[in-house]
Amino acid sequence: MSSLISKVSFLSEDFLLQNEFARTLYHSYAKNLPIIDYHCHLPPKEIADNKQFETISQIWLAGDHYKWRAMRTLGINEKYITGSASDKEKFIQWAYAVPYTVRNPLFHWTHLELQRYFSIYDLLNPDSAEKIYSQTNESLNTSEFTTRALLKKMNVEVVCTTDDPADSLEYHQLIKKDNFGTLILPTFRPDKAYAVEQPSAYNQYLAVLGKASGIEIKNYTDLLDALKNRIEFFASVGCQLADHGLEQLYFTDRAAAPIETIFKKLRNEETLNNEEVKYFKYNTLLELARLYHNYGWTQQFHLGALRNTNIRMLSQLGPDTGFDSIGDYSQAVALSRFLNALDSTDQLTKTILYNLNPSDNEVMGTMIGNFNDGSVKGKVQFGSAWWFLDQKDGMEKQINALSNLGLLSCFIGMLTDSRSFLSYPRHEYFRRILCNLIGKDVEQGELPADEKWLGKIVTDICYNNAKAYFDFKDK
Amino acid sequence: MSSLISKVSFLSEDFLLQNEFARTLYHSYAKNLPIIDYHCHLPPKEIADNKQFETISQIWLAGDHYKWRAMRTLGINEKYITGSASDKEKFIQWAYAVPYTVRNPLFHWTHLELQRYFSIYDLLNPDSAEKIYSQTNESLNTSEFTTRALLKKMNVEVVCTTDDPADSLEYHQLIKKDNFGTLILPTFRPDKAYAVEQPSAYNQYLAVLGKASGIEIKNYTDLLDALKNRIEFFASVGCQLADHGLEQLYFTDRAAAPIETIFKKLRNEETLNNEEVKYFKYNTLLELARLYHNYGWTQQFHLGALRNTNIRMLSQLGPDTGFDSIGDYSQAVALSRFLNALDSTDQLTKTILYNLNPSDNEVMGTMIGNFNDGSVKGKVQFGSAWWFLDQKDGMEKQINALSNLGLLSCFIGMLTDSRSFLSYPRHEYFRRILCNLIGKDVEQGELPADEKWLGKIVTDICYNNAKAYFDFKDK
Amino acid sequence: MSSLISKVSFLSEDFLLQNEFARTLYHSYAKNLPIIDYHCHLPPKEIADNKQFETISQIWLAGDHYKWRAMRTLGINEKYITGSASDKEKFIQWAYAVPYTVRNPLFHWTHLELQRYFSIYDLLNPDSAEKIYSQTNESLNTSEFTTRALLKKMNVEVVCTTDDPADSLEYHQLIKKDNFGTLILPTFRPDKAYAVEQPSAYNQYLAVLGKASGIEIKNYTDLLDALKNRIEFFASVGCQLADHGLEQLYFTDRAAAPIETIFKKLRNEETLNNEEVKYFKYNTLLELARLYHNYGWTQQFHLGALRNTNIRMLSQLGPDTGFDSIGDYSQAVALSRFLNALDSTDQLTKTILYNLNPSDNEVMGTMIGNFNDGSVKGKVQFGSAWWFLDQKDGMEKQINALSNLGLLSCFIGMLTDSRSFLSYPRHEYFRRILCNLIGKDVEQGELPADEKWLGKIVTDICYNNAKAYFDFKDK
Repeated sequence: MSSLISKVSFLSEDFLLQNEFARTLYHSYAKNLPIIDYHCHLPPKEIADNKQFETISQIWLAGDHYKWRAMRTLGINEKYITGSASDKEKFIQWAYAVPYTVRNPLFHWTHLELQRYFSIYDLLNPDSAEKIYSQTNESLNTSEFTTRALLKKMNVEVVCTTDDPADSLEYHQLIKKDNFGTLILPTFRPDKAYAVEQPSAYNQYLAVLGKASGIEIKNYTDLLDALKNRIEFFASVGCQLADHGLEQLYFTDRAAAPIETIFKKLRNEETLNNEEVKYFKYNTLLELARLYHNYGWTQQFHLGALRNTNIRMLSQLGPDTGFDSIGDYSQAVALSRFLNALDSTDQLTKTILYNLNPSDNEVMGTMIGNFNDGSVKGKVQFGSAWWFLDQKDGMEKQINALSNLGLLSCFIGMLTDSRSFLSYPRHEYFRRILCNLIGKDVEQGELPADEKWLGKIVTDICYNNAKAYFDFKDK
Repeated sequence: MSSLISKVSFLSEDFLLQNEFARTLYHSYAKNLPIIDYHCHLPPKEIADNKQFETISQIWLAGDHYKWRAMRTLGINEKYITGSASDKEKFIQWAYAVPYTVRNPLFHWTHLELQRYFSIYDLLNPDSAEKIYSQTNESLNTSEFTTRALLKKMNVEVVCTTDDPADSLEYHQLIKKDNFGTLILPTFRPDKAYAVEQPSAYNQYLAVLGKASGIEIKNYTDLLDALKNRIEFFASVGCQLADHGLEQLYFTDRAAAPIETIFKKLRNEETLNNEEVKYFKYNTLLELARLYHNYGWTQQFHLGALRNTNIRMLSQLGPDTGFDSIGDYSQAVALSRFLNALDSTDQLTKTILYNLNPSDNEVMGTMIGNFNDGSVKGKVQFGSAWWFLDQKDGMEKQINALSNLGLLSCFIGMLTDSRSFLSYPRHEYFRRILCNLIGKDVEQGELPADEKWLGKIVTDICYNNAKAYFDFKDK
Repeated sequence: MSSLISKVSFLSEDFLLQNEFARTLYHSYAKNLPIIDYHCHLPPKEIADNKQFETISQIWLAGDHYKWRAMRTLGINEKYITGSASDKEKFIQWAYAVPYTVRNPLFHWTHLELQRYFSIYDLLNPDSAEKIYSQTNESLNTSEFTTRALLKKMNVEVVCTTDDPADSLEYHQLIKKDNFGTLILPTFRPDKAYAVEQPSAYNQYLAVLGKASGIEIKNYTDLLDALKNRIEFFASVGCQLADHGLEQLYFTDRAAAPIETIFKKLRNEETLNNEEVKYFKYNTLLELARLYHNYGWTQQFHLGALRNTNIRMLSQLGPDTGFDSIGDYSQAVALSRFLNALDSTDQLTKTILYNLNPSDNEVMGTMIGNFNDGSVKGKVQFGSAWWFLDQKDGMEKQINALSNLGLLSCFIGMLTDSRSFLSYPRHEYFRRILCNLIGKDVEQGELPADEKWLGKIVTDICYNNAKAYFDFKDK
């Protein structure tokens, strides 16, 4: 057995496509479709500036907490991860780590990204590190590697970023003026507006939000007015989506206290009790969700992360630095009642539910079927495998649960959820996995080998469904 | 790649049987065994009347909330689902929906049922809809398609329906007189007897139960007497099974209040608090379970559904119309203590546990091993994949969990749990999946290729075990 | 199809190795590596005595609650399981049961053990029972079947037993003197030191612990002193590991009561309330974990078992007799905060987390990534599939979750967790499964076919990683 075999088959043209029907579906239907990346964390400023990166470390390692976790697990010193080491030193350490990421999605992503963006087909490891460092840096310094060029190279039609209600959206407005070919839209993510666990930080945020909206927030009604003001503003810049990161959705039958009383406590920097926190979140989310319905937006809920587990590192590096985890919160009952509260007055807007614990796949796969009312195809969506689950196993489990419990054919498909301009091959990854699952069913006689029909289903999931569901427009 | 391939392999004779050994097991052992359908929701009246259906919509679409959910997800108007549209219009809409059910069990069930009952081998879609509508309706109007003929055609030996304690069982008694070849037995399903969340509805039910039993229910003791009276009556009509639908089983160490006090509150139409509700259910289920033990019945618990999530549709269409979901309730501790409470006085009768959330498969697969006492083979059973899980993935996961954690060889196998006379191919579906799993193990050298032994195991699971476990008799 | 096929393929040399690359990995890299069995329940006395067993029933059936559960499920009378029947009668019953364990790991373990220890390649069933009973007993009475000979036969380099803090470790000290070739080390398992649910039994234990430590335990500080004394003593005998069996880890922000007050209640044999129990456990585990850190030990947590479910059998047979189950306790939040409490003062020692419910695999797979600090490769470990999960499905799920969410390459691999000297083929089982998963990835082009690199990864997981992680030394 020679290691040459790897050059032939690993990450070949037919990567992840295990049979003929799957290959036809991918190459003839999925491959060349544009990308609608309806949820990601790309920084609008870097698109507005059409930023260019000096080194592969800056575009690839800085900000990528997936890679950081892997390096820490290997026992690499933080200096070479987020610390003072040079770009090159950090890259050398990452190259050392790559062979140890065997079977982790990082191993696939790394080499897919080297192939698709840089046409580098070598494996990254200590032997190839120097050469790849030079090659990628050379490429990055050409005009084909500006942020906008990267998006066009990957055939990205729409990008929805993630923005705080107090954001001025100035970069979005700059981007709109240029109309460079990819539609860049903001997403309203008001997590800080109900992050009431820490009254002091919350009051600081209210000041920022008050300033952005021009509404002094003295009471809860003011808060809602300020949020409504920002929703209107976001809508004027083309926003059609909201997003929320939560451990779980909340529901309560009775108020813990009058909402204005709770708000007054917050203003006085008093700590709320558990019931008050939940009721405040429930009530505020309900009010927000009704506003989204008024504006015809789609709302997203990312449920189930256990964040900031490591206080020592949180104080050193801040949030989103690789110390978050999959939680095991109860989801079904409160989620169901929250959606029902909106539906009961016919104010449930299009909704996407993402779960982080795959043990909840079946809860989500059935929950989405409870609130369809014939108004929109696939009105409530089971969002694509997210974060830690954004790998072959995770995607397959989400696709299978959705298939078994709902209608895969109505699925709006993949998004990157990434902070990096080099993450677009994840759409390719998803498309290959999807085509492979359908191809396997055909191969095993579980689906008729009707290429036209299944090609249409694949095209819908990879592009048409999202296109129709969001109907994004450049305003 | 031509779409002709589908005609060859999809739903062929060897559907789901991926290797030679699996095919031998299915065709030589499983295929022709009679069906013991020990749990379903067929209406006894339609068997007593030997009912004939005018159109395929009446036997296939009316009452099938699986299909309704799919149609709603596609954005089809309720008029064509449960509304005023004609039978034909509804069928045309369903035919439109079928190709969009790709990878959902509905796609397999639909075509299996067209093949097995109507010898129609075409795919249902808008092109074939008119023709299939005529063909099926023509068949339905022949004498081979009465309810009784359908049961005999499918080789159904026993059917256990699901009946409220207040039911007169008049149709069961009519059926017994005819002795038409399939044994039809009632199942005691007393869910309403502990549905104490809504005191007003509960009091109405007590009146009905009181009338049926001839016992005026003034206190809790009367309630137990009335239930005992009905158990005795059900037993006299051949009932040997009880069934219960619950979010979870309950257990509590101490009474929330004296049980008669709680009952008095109910009688006064006062709302019980959470602790009282749970204690009432726990206590009543315990009393019922002891009675089942006295009568030598088998008790079933269907655990984990989150029902009636959509209040708007509940008020329009009532329960069981496609707005239920998989829940994520805790199961293990209370279930274990409930069973122990019965076992500790040696009053635990044969028991079947069904879970709706596959995340609980391993809890169930191990729970059943805790209360075997050598009295009966497979005394406590892990029930077959249920409702949403009644598909290939769900069945495989249940069979694998049972195999790994308990003894698959003692499994009593499949049931339809269906409201439709066209659902019997689900037994075929189960048998194929079972044979395929065992065949794959043999193919991979994980089991010896001993046809006689494995054929016996398959025969036991598909027929002999249920036969011996229930030992149903026509009284 | 002839039953001869079984002789060819079932449990052949390439058992579980489904492709060429997997076979190379196993036979050239994994197969001959020594075994580091860092967690098991072998009785040190039987090693000190170099015990020999008279019959196969004594070494194989006595004490094996996996087999007992299977036999009870089949309806076999307890007399033939743990009762008064003769060794031979019990073996005959077990031989009857074996064919009914089809697809359960018992079927594989049974035949692997017959092959590897006794060179018996027949299937155990009623036909072969007599012959196998004689053959195995004959072998057992040779000098190659003493406990020490069995360990050496299986190439076991290290064994860590499981010992109570009050244990004198006299047998460990005897074994050390002989230095027979396998390093036998104790593990500190202080479960009884916080088993405060039953104050009376707890006080009895305190007396025993007090005597062992020479410290009269009048208050909580004395308890900690006594435990510290025993840790020091265990360390002096070579102990480098602690272990804990818990439903879940505990965390609480505030004391339920001053810890000395709670201890006083215990001493007065008063029952603690739930909050007091949890706080006591939390506090004591925290104190212990800090001591382990001081000593450079590794701590293990076995989480999620629901034990002693069947009170009737518990009173007859005692604990660990086959009446335990997989629980569904919440794990993530408290576990995360417990680890953080240790990490925040930089007192988190090397830690291994084992979960019993596979629904928690993803929680564990991500939790271990939150507390790596660059100090040790794979500092926090996701322990190998445990107890009920110690089978192909369970191992594959654990390996896949670890691969997807962490770094498989840093995994310290398999342990037996067994009470039996015949369980060592479970390491072979694990190694075959590991090699097969990696081989399949290569076959499908998901990994490069680089034998040297993947052979190194396999070698690390099967041996090198545990060797480096524990760095066990004969003191």
